[in-house]
Amino acid sequence: MLRNYKAVGRVLYGRNAFAQLDDIFEPLRVDAGSYVLFLLDEYFEGKDLVKRIPMKNGDLIRFMDVTDEPKTKVVDALVEEVMNEKGMAPVSVVGIGGGSVMDYAKATRLMFTNPGSSARYQGLDLIKNKGVHCTVVPTISGTGAEVSMTTVLTGPEKKLGIKGDFTPADQVVLDPDLISSVPDPQHFYTAMDCYIHNVEALNGNRKTVMGASLGRESLQLCQEIFLSGNSRTPENDEKLMVASYLGGLSLTYSEVGACHAISYGLATVTGIHHGIGNCIVFNQLDEFYPEEVKEFRKMMEINKVDLPKGVLKDYSSEDIEKMVDVALTLTFMWAHVAGPEWEKVITREKLRDLYMKM
Amino acid sequence: MLRNYKAVGRVLYGRNAFAQLDDIFEPLRVDAGSYVLFLLDEYFEGKDLVKRIPMKNGDLIRFMDVTDEPKTKVVDALVEEVMNEKGMAPVSVVGIGGGSVMDYAKATRLMFTNPGSSARYQGLDLIKNKGVHCTVVPTISGTGAEVSMTTVLTGPEKKLGIKGDFTPADQVVLDPDLISSVPDPQHFYTAMDCYIHNVEALNGNRKTVMGASLGRESLQLCQEIFLSGNSRTPENDEKLMVASYLGGLSLTYSEVGACHAISYGLATVTGIHHGIGNCIVFNQLDEFYPEEVKEFRKMMEINKVDLPKGVLKDYSSEDIEKMVDVALTLTFMWAHVAGPEWEKVITREKLRDLYMKM
Repeated sequence: MLRNYKAVGRVLYGRNAFAQLDDIFEPLRVDAGSYVLFLLDEYFEGKDLVKRIPMKNGDLIRFMDVTDEPKTKVVDALVEEVMNEKGMAPVSVVGIGGGSVMDYAKATRLMFTNPGSSARYQGLDLIKNKGVHCTVVPTISGTGAEVSMTTVLTGPEKKLGIKGDFTPADQVVLDPDLISSVPDPQHFYTAMDCYIHNVEALNGNRKTVMGASLGRESLQLCQEIFLSGNSRTPENDEKLMVASYLGGLSLTYSEVGACHAISYGLATVTGIHHGIGNCIVFNQLDEFYPEEVKEFRKMMEINKVDLPKGVLKDYSSEDIEKMVDVALTLTFMWAHVAGPEWEKVITREKLRDLYMKM
Repeated sequence: MLRNYKAVGRVLYGRNAFAQLDDIFEPLRVDAGSYVLFLLDEYFEGKDLVKRIPMKNGDLIRFMDVTDEPKTKVVDALVEEVMNEKGMAPVSVVGIGGGSVMDYAKATRLMFTNPGSSARYQGLDLIKNKGVHCTVVPTISGTGAEVSMTTVLTGPEKKLGIKGDFTPADQVVLDPDLISSVPDPQHFYTAMDCYIHNVEALNGNRKTVMGASLGRESLQLCQEIFLSGNSRTPENDEKLMVASYLGGLSLTYSEVGACHAISYGLATVTGIHHGIGNCIVFNQLDEFYPEEVKEFRKMMEINKVDLPKGVLKDYSSEDIEKMVDVALTLTFMWAHVAGPEWEKVITREKLRDLYMKM
C-alpha cells in the first residue's frame, strides 16, 4: 500500500519574498474579526524583522521560547489562551523561525479544530479535522520542517510527531535573505540536519528513486556550500534554503536512519538540541556512513566548527541504558538502515559503545 | 513581484500505484449521481489497461484522439457533451496518457466551472473559478504536464496555454510500470522533451537556484538513462518518471529557451508533434547549447534513434517566414536565453538559417 502524499499547498520563493507576506493573508481576512496568529522565535523580539510583519488590527503575535524542543503543553496552552482572548480561530497560524517554531505553528493550527490535548494526536493519521490555514517562514535552514508532514512534539508520555495528511503547511515562504544573520555555529549544526537527512535517505532499504534523487541534489548543494571555504555568502544562503526544502521532501519518499535513531535517545535523556545532537552522533557513525562521516569532519574543519566532546561524561550508566532503550524503539529507522533482521546487528552493546564515545 | 506557486495537491508514487486509483475517487463520490470522467489516449482502446480502471456505475470514459495537439474546440465539445448527458459536473476528470491527454484533463476540468469557450482563457491567470478535481496519470514520461501550471491548447486564434493557479492537477499518480510498454522512438522523443527542458532551464537569465537544482538532478537522471546502453529497464522507467516530474517542476522556477521557441514555430506551421519537433530543432542548436547538443547526439546514437532529416524541404519560404514570426513572438523565452537586448542577437536571419537546416 503506497501513501498518497499531500504536498505543501503553495511556495513563495525568492529574495525579499517576505515583503509579499501580506498578499497571503489578504484573501483569508474575509469575516469581521478575522485575525492572523504570528508565532516567532523569541530571538526576534525587538529585532527589525518584527517591524516588517504585516500586522493588521486584531492580529496576534507570540514570541516562542525554543530553549527546549516543542511541547504538547505549550501548544495546548497557546490555543486555550488565544481562544479565550478571541473566541474564534485565526485565519492563519504563521510560524517564523526554525524547525521548532514552524512545528509549533503546524501543531497549533491543528488544535483549533481538533478537541482535547495535542498529546492525543501524537502518532500517524490520528488527526481527524482539517486545521486552519498555516504559513511557515524558515529563518534558519536545515530541518526540512517547512515541507515535512510531521510536527515533532514532546508530550507527557512520549516524544513523537503528529504526522499525517493534515500536518504539512498550506504555504511556505522561502526568502534566502532571512537566513543571512543566523549566528555560528547554529547555522552549521542546523544545516547538518539537512546533510544527515540526505545521507540517511540515500543509504537504506526504504530508499526510492524519487527520495534518492531529491536527496542526492540536496546533498550536492550541502557539499558545494560547506566545502566552498565560505559558507556564508548570499548565494550559499539560497542554496542552503533550497537544500533544506529538497532534503525535507526527500524524506517523504525515504526514511531517516541510524543518526536520527541514536540522536533521539540522546535528546530524550539530555535535552541536547536536535541540530548539535545529530552532529555529535554522526561524528561517531563511521561504521554506518564511512565516506560521509569523513566528509562531515572535513566540513567541520573548513568551517572551523569545534564539536563539543565528552558530552555524556557526567551521565550515569543507567542514563546511557535509557538512551539505548529509546534508540531501539525506532524500529522503522533501523529496518531502513539494516533490513528486517536489524536486531541481529543493531545490538544494545553496539549502541552503548557509541554513546560512550560521545 | 514573485509568484506564489500552487503545487500539485497530492502525489501517489510507486510501482503499481495504479491499483490504488479507486482510493482517490472514493471520498469524492459523495452525492447521488456522482461520477468520474476518465480521458484516455485512444492508443489504449481495447488494451488491458482499460480493464484495470476502477469504473463505477455512471462513470464515463472517453478515448482522445491525440493525432493533433490539444484543441480548445475538442475541450468545449467534450464539456458540452458530458453536461448534456449528465446534467452535472464530474467529481474528478482523470487524464491517463501523455502530455496531450493530461492537458485535456487539466483544461476540461476548468471548463465545467468557467463559462464560455476555453479559448477565452488562453493566457495567464484568466480563469476565475476553481475547476473540478483533476487527476493525471502519465503513461509516457517527459513532458512534465503532470506537474506543470499550464495546459497548452490550440484555439481558433492562437496556440497558448491556460496558465495559472487553477491549472495544476489536484492529484498525480506516478506508476513506473505504466511506461514500460511505450513504443520506440516515441519513448525517446518524449523523454528528450524533459532533457531539453532541463538544458533550457539551466541556461538562461531567469534561472533560480531552485529551478537549477531540480533541473540539474533531472538532467543527471536523463544522462544515466540514455547513456546507459539500455534505456528500457524497469529501473530506468522509474528514473525517467522521476526525471519528468522534477524537470517539469524545475520549469516552474525557470523558463524554457531557444528550442521551445523555435519548435513552437515549427509546430504551428507543420503540425509536427512536440517531442520529435523539439529533437529536430535541438539538433541544430550547437550555437546555444554546444555541449548538450553533442551529448544529445551521443544519446541518439546509443539508443539507435534516426532523426528525420529534411522535414522542411517541401515548405515554401513563406512558410519558413511564418515559423520565424511565431518563434519571435515568444519574447519571454528569448529574454531568458539572451537577456533584455535579445533582439540584437536573435535575428530573423539566424532563425531562418536554423529552420533551413532542418
